[in-house]
Amino acid sequence: MVGLFLSAYIIALQSIGHNLKNMKRTVFFVSDSTGITAETLGNALLSQFEDIDYYKVTLPFIGSQDEAAEVVQQINDISMNATERPVVFSTLSDPGLYEVIRGSTALVLDLFSVFLGPLGREFKLNPSHGRGLYHGLADRAHYEVRIDAVDFALSHDDGASIHHYERADLILVGVSRSGKTPTSIYLAMQFGIRTANYPLTSDDLDLCRLPEFLEPYLERLYGLTIEPQRLRQVRQTRRPNSPYTSLSRCRKEVNVVEQLFKQQRIPFLDTSFISIEEIASRIMRDSGLKRRFF
Amino acid sequence: MVGLFLSAYIIALQSIGHNLKNMKRTVFFVSDSTGITAETLGNALLSQFEDIDYYKVTLPFIGSQDEAAEVVQQINDISMNATERPVVFSTLSDPGLYEVIRGSTALVLDLFSVFLGPLGREFKLNPSHGRGLYHGLADRAHYEVRIDAVDFALSHDDGASIHHYERADLILVGVSRSGKTPTSIYLAMQFGIRTANYPLTSDDLDLCRLPEFLEPYLERLYGLTIEPQRLRQVRQTRRPNSPYTSLSRCRKEVNVVEQLFKQQRIPFLDTSFISIEEIASRIMRDSGLKRRFF
Repeated sequence: MVGLFLSAYIIALQSIGHNLKNMKRTVFFVSDSTGITAETLGNALLSQFEDIDYYKVTLPFIGSQDEAAEVVQQINDISMNATERPVVFSTLSDPGLYEVIRGSTALVLDLFSVFLGPLGREFKLNPSHGRGLYHGLADRAHYEVRIDAVDFALSHDDGASIHHYERADLILVGVSRSGKTPTSIYLAMQFGIRTANYPLTSDDLDLCRLPEFLEPYLERLYGLTIEPQRLRQVRQTRRPNSPYTSLSRCRKEVNVVEQLFKQQRIPFLDTSFISIEEIASRIMRDSGLKRRFF
Repeated sequence: MVGLFLSAYIIALQSIGHNLKNMKRTVFFVSDSTGITAETLGNALLSQFEDIDYYKVTLPFIGSQDEAAEVVQQINDISMNATERPVVFSTLSDPGLYEVIRGSTALVLDLFSVFLGPLGREFKLNPSHGRGLYHGLADRAHYEVRIDAVDFALSHDDGASIHHYERADLILVGVSRSGKTPTSIYLAMQFGIRTANYPLTSDDLDLCRLPEFLEPYLERLYGLTIEPQRLRQVRQTRRPNSPYTSLSRCRKEVNVVEQLFKQQRIPFLDTSFISIEEIASRIMRDSGLKRRFF
């Protein structure tokens, strides 16, 4: 399976005209589970070296000596055909499997063992070396909470339903295309926060006031705003050249909505140049909400 | 801000009757960005020590010496009131800020610097020590792709629209409540994969065949299945005691759907006891789809 996948990867590289000799670095994320942990820390580390082009490959669910040996074989093949050897970020929790990978010609960084030592001494316990507990069964306990929050976010997306706002932990408000939908879903999925979102429309903005049914929930409102230029760009990809995308309209909507947020003392955040992760993390911090699972 | 938050945290602990003396370990995730990297690796490491109760606190966006000093003060306060000192996972990229945190009485693990050395030597470059590049502006380039995929997943959720399936990278099929919706959204959000999902209903299952309009897209179908007992449990929380939740009905639907998957050679996965992350990662691996951003 792994072999098949990697062969396909090499063929894909060749077919799109990549020349391995020209590629700066191939980076592998090798894991006995999903590979999310290896990707997350690996990418954060790589972002500290800005001038390098990376080609990234995730190899999840590596669970046996045979699979590990196959990974090594393929790493070495790529190493031989590249000017620079690959870099491997490993979160294999079985030391035996890690030893196999370490036998490759790549620079292999084990993201686990270096910390398990100090933690084990601190806790006076030995690590279980169990495979991917975190992303596996341990999450089950939170499954219901998470699904409930996602269901809530979907059924209360974009003002679709304004019922049951009393069940909402948070209600995002802002102009159309200010980032409410992806933020709501991310908050539900990652933190289990039941998030509704409501688009403030021309009618609301012309009157410069909140719709009446939002008033009982003032404490749960959080505003998203966005620079007019950026808003125009986002709307343009959605509905090119409609009045909705004109800079003057974007500017007017944003002005009024920010005025409304200030008037009503609704905390708000400019989403123009930050990622969904950062928007969500800032809202969690500012609102003092506690995640429903960890 | 941080001080306020931590004071609120201590008050919250007291008010819900927690006694710090009885709590095994408080764990802090300290970051100059969202804290997602610290949480992800930290949680994976902690899951290797199963018998400990943790109380987890994320302190994101710590950007100045003053904020770092405030964090230390609060860590030390908790340390003094607990039988075991806290554990801190840090991804502060500024060595100056990390030095401040290291002055606390906690066990402080720096998840960054230990790997920056070997990477820097390998790349013959110095790390930029820039704040949270990965989750910040670097993501912007992928924003459109991601939002487009999330929009697609939402507008093609649960068979809502069966148009534009030719734009889908993947179409998840399965019985109601087998995990299609959260999986579709996760695939869109994390990998930029445009995922539709279609619920196979009694009508389809009675005939034991796929709806005709899915036939041109057979190659893009991926099936989700679930153990009847588990399905019953999930449906029960949604619509308690309806015929829809009876074990016999769940059993029948699952039997037929699996038969259909095998008949049509649609790859499928049992979602009963794995997390959304694992379902998504397995689908990515099995389908050979490439993520649209990294």
